[in-house]
Amino acid sequence: MTEPNPNRTLEAQLHDLLSDGRQVTIATAESCTGGNIAHRITLNAGSSTYFLGGVVSYANSVKQHVLGVPEAILANPGAVSGPCALAMAEGVRTLMGADLAISTTGIAGPIGGTVRKPVGLVYIALATPERTTVEEHHFEGDRRAVIEATTDRALEMLLTAVESPDAPSA
Amino acid sequence: MTEPNPNRTLEAQLHDLLSDGRQVTIATAESCTGGNIAHRITLNAGSSTYFLGGVVSYANSVKQHVLGVPEAILANPGAVSGPCALAMAEGVRTLMGADLAISTTGIAGPIGGTVRKPVGLVYIALATPERTTVEEHHFEGDRRAVIEATTDRALEMLLTAVESPDAPSA
Repeated sequence: MTEPNPNRTLEAQLHDLLSDGRQVTIATAESCTGGNIAHRITLNAGSSTYFLGGVVSYANSVKQHVLGVPEAILANPGAVSGPCALAMAEGVRTLMGADLAISTTGIAGPIGGTVRKPVGLVYIALATPERTTVEEHHFEGDRRAVIEATTDRALEMLLTAVESPDAPSA
Repeated sequence: MTEPNPNRTLEAQLHDLLSDGRQVTIATAESCTGGNIAHRITLNAGSSTYFLGGVVSYANSVKQHVLGVPEAILANPGAVSGPCALAMAEGVRTLMGADLAISTTGIAGPIGGTVRKPVGLVYIALATPERTTVEEHHFEGDRRAVIEATTDRALEMLLTAVESPDAPSA
């Protein structure tokens, strides 16, 4: 197994691990990151061997009809919530037949925040063959900073999942 | 109507036009650009009023089963072809119920090129309510340059479509 080199970008570290012949596949479901996770993954030549694809689900109709997020979740607790992130990750994992799937939903700002859901509130979920988990984050900074911080954390979660002893393998 | 300001990025010009109350919606289907078009569109706060979402269809299985590209097209002329780009644009337009859809498929490189389909060969298709059109391009440069050049041209095609006299309107 190749050890990740901390001097390389997160997506390059992920590429090093997944180009090691382990045949793990990845899919993404992005709301607040708007495609940036897929973009950074696919900056690596050869990423098509492990990256199947992703859905950018900006509209709730796309979350519901493409990813299968239940309408009841979108109504309450809403699109920016842990349950929505979980359903997005599980939905895209099933849709694309991937081993691992990551999802993001949040308020990138600078508009759209509320008292209960302020700018910078982000949920990131990871779906594996064994379980789906979600993290809640409160990121600082402008719109681009929130998008990049969310993308960084999503890539870290994928790295951890690929490195774990019970990671899927061929 | 707001005139596009050439000093602003293409995605900001598109934002200026589409924030003008015309209620035109957009969807993306990206292969070689890997989510970069969606990423650049969603850097604009408020883009959720017109950007419904997109599919990053890196694997052929995603092109076929999510976007509805016919298996016969993927077999011949293949995923990097005008017919595939046309089917991707029409597929995501239908899937997301958008007015306008843009698609990309090509060889971003530096690996994956052949004599008949060299690095830099890219097809970009635009689907509107009236018609679907496709352009063939041969872009120069490294992987990131091909991705950015393709994204720029895709955004220009969307801008032209939004500005045209028969553009969809509410």
